[in-house]
Amino acid sequence: MAPARSNILVLPGDGIGPEAMAEVDKIIAWTNAEGLTAIETDVDLVGGAAYDDHGQAISDAAMEKALAADAVLFGAVGGPKWDDVPYDARPEAGLLRLRKDLALFANLRPAICYPALASASSLKPELVEGLDILIVRELTGGVYFGEPKEVVTLENGEQRAVDTQVYTTHEIDRIARVAFELARTRSNQVCSMEKRNVMRSGVLWNKVVTATHADFQDVELSHMLADAGGMQLVRAPKQFDVIVTDNLFGDMLSDVAAMLTGSLGMLPSASLGAEDATTGKRKAMYEPVHGSAPDIAGQGKANPIAMVASFAMMLRYSLGMADLATQVETAIANVLDAGIRTGDIAGSGITPVSTSQMGDALLAEVQK
Amino acid sequence: MAPARSNILVLPGDGIGPEAMAEVDKIIAWTNAEGLTAIETDVDLVGGAAYDDHGQAISDAAMEKALAADAVLFGAVGGPKWDDVPYDARPEAGLLRLRKDLALFANLRPAICYPALASASSLKPELVEGLDILIVRELTGGVYFGEPKEVVTLENGEQRAVDTQVYTTHEIDRIARVAFELARTRSNQVCSMEKRNVMRSGVLWNKVVTATHADFQDVELSHMLADAGGMQLVRAPKQFDVIVTDNLFGDMLSDVAAMLTGSLGMLPSASLGAEDATTGKRKAMYEPVHGSAPDIAGQGKANPIAMVASFAMMLRYSLGMADLATQVETAIANVLDAGIRTGDIAGSGITPVSTSQMGDALLAEVQK
Ligand SMILES: CC(C)[C@H](C(=O)O)[C@@H](O)C(=O)O
Ligand SMILES: CC(C)[C@H](C(=O)O)[C@@H](O)C(=O)O
Repeated sequence: MAPARSNILVLPGDGIGPEAMAEVDKIIAWTNAEGLTAIETDVDLVGGAAYDDHGQAISDAAMEKALAADAVLFGAVGGPKWDDVPYDARPEAGLLRLRKDLALFANLRPAICYPALASASSLKPELVEGLDILIVRELTGGVYFGEPKEVVTLENGEQRAVDTQVYTTHEIDRIARVAFELARTRSNQVCSMEKRNVMRSGVLWNKVVTATHADFQDVELSHMLADAGGMQLVRAPKQFDVIVTDNLFGDMLSDVAAMLTGSLGMLPSASLGAEDATTGKRKAMYEPVHGSAPDIAGQGKANPIAMVASFAMMLRYSLGMADLATQVETAIANVLDAGIRTGDIAGSGITPVSTSQMGDALLAEVQK
Repeated sequence: MAPARSNILVLPGDGIGPEAMAEVDKIIAWTNAEGLTAIETDVDLVGGAAYDDHGQAISDAAMEKALAADAVLFGAVGGPKWDDVPYDARPEAGLLRLRKDLALFANLRPAICYPALASASSLKPELVEGLDILIVRELTGGVYFGEPKEVVTLENGEQRAVDTQVYTTHEIDRIARVAFELARTRSNQVCSMEKRNVMRSGVLWNKVVTATHADFQDVELSHMLADAGGMQLVRAPKQFDVIVTDNLFGDMLSDVAAMLTGSLGMLPSASLGAEDATTGKRKAMYEPVHGSAPDIAGQGKANPIAMVASFAMMLRYSLGMADLATQVETAIANVLDAGIRTGDIAGSGITPVSTSQMGDALLAEVQK
């Protein structure tokens, strides 16, 4: 049976985004040619690249394509070149608009430690070997989007900046459901993190997650203050299975978790919207956890694995191709086991390969 | 010459707070008897203990004593016993009121790795040996105190929780000055952390710190996004000297930094107000970074070192007794070198001592 057609918007962005994306293109070309996928891609600009072209971090036309697509593949945005552009046009604004306008409220950030890389972690290997955490971060609420969000000049000439953290019952309930459902496919444990001892939103978060848990009594739920959570991630990360937390805590905690694995530069993420009641489909965007790394951009040094792993998540969550996703993920593990490494993960005694050599090695493994 | 009289309010609080404080009492009794100090202490309730006594996390009378004292020594607050008390009377409210009403805007959190404990860190020893970071956290602003801070019920029956992150120019300027001044007594480097790519308060923070830096051109200033800062703390903590950041990021980042050292349970903190223009004095409170540890309270298992180290900070910053402070700090290092350990830091093969045995060992060292 021929695979269903799918319509993917590709937004390579800035820095190492385009280089990393080129390696995904190679894999798509092959899976399409083999009849394993029928992916049609459209490419557009985002971030600084979009600003340079037309003065906005993403155009309305690109947003319309994103809304119409089955999924978006996103590279990375930002760099010092755009440090002084107007706030609303900064590269990150393109990413934030995509998240908000596609209503991608559930950000899935797996932090796994590839066995071949356990020694690359700054943690003692026994603490990270076999690590497999999933951080479920709320992505369309909290202090990222709450209003007022402004800087005003006071009568005395001082400036006063305000950001607003807002959460409502349904926003917390729906992200909690995603976390509980995913926990059922894993080790059945959810740890919810907030600062209820200081934040009203933390009190509500705690209360709603606890209430939603009534529908998932087979899943074990625990609560931790977010600062203690950061500590525990560093002390004994393997105690966690699924962590559910808000937008800002999720930003911090997922970066710490990613770093623990020694596999930063290798970790993918999926940002998902709600399921459409009639079609059963959900909007989705897939992006590496790493940033645009302007310092190494254009030099063939970037590690394309996070981008390729994000593509694998797309196969699984948006195209319903779990087997092909696993095939890509296995290819990544095999290439690492074979000692093929880009500079970021080479360690001593290994000659690093280039971005495209790594991409070729991955493709060759997928083809096996 | 007889030492100047000082007037210290002691607030042992909940959980292991009172046990840890008892070991400081022993040291004060000796330094007073020797004529090294002339400390008069007054003891009062805070946290759950205060709530149980009179329904508030700190009484107005205790607050008046705190305002009149030369310094406050604070143990710890909180525990599951008070999980369901009204929000405004929760144990943490006592701590937050002290910080706010004493205007203790500058929270100094040293993260040092005691050489004897480098192997207790979850990080590889070479990454933490000799670690000596100072986190300067803004303590009276940001999302902790901004208004509105409320939960309201919407027409559709949902609840909506709001917390407000607010910073003004002078709040950022004064904490930046503290950081730059302290950097001059250390390695002359300040790294400022915020999320300017998402938060308006981060944009203002970045701008004001940069402007204040004009008065401290001899100090090196760098900026890092707070999520990247969390990563870098885990990856290579020794790259930092002084980190200056806001209240909430400071809460998260200082906990991560404390855990890195392997010395959690051993780290002190100082919270300082502005210098009084006439007397040159500043209000101050000293407290361990660790919490109330209700699970081990009352069992003689608590490590009193963080509390004793907080007392040493008080000697240095509030009583102008730097030599005696160093004497206490040296005693801590010597006791650790001698292999005397409470259970939290014992490791395998060492028989842990009790809280009071540790206190006695520290006192004996101070007396040498
Ligand atoms: C680039 C930035 C706006 C973004 C965020 O803060 O969410 C990034 O740090 C992330 O975690 O995806
Ligand atoms: C107890 C709590 C209110 C407090 C805080 O969040 O500031 C604590 O975590 C700290 O870091 O001192």
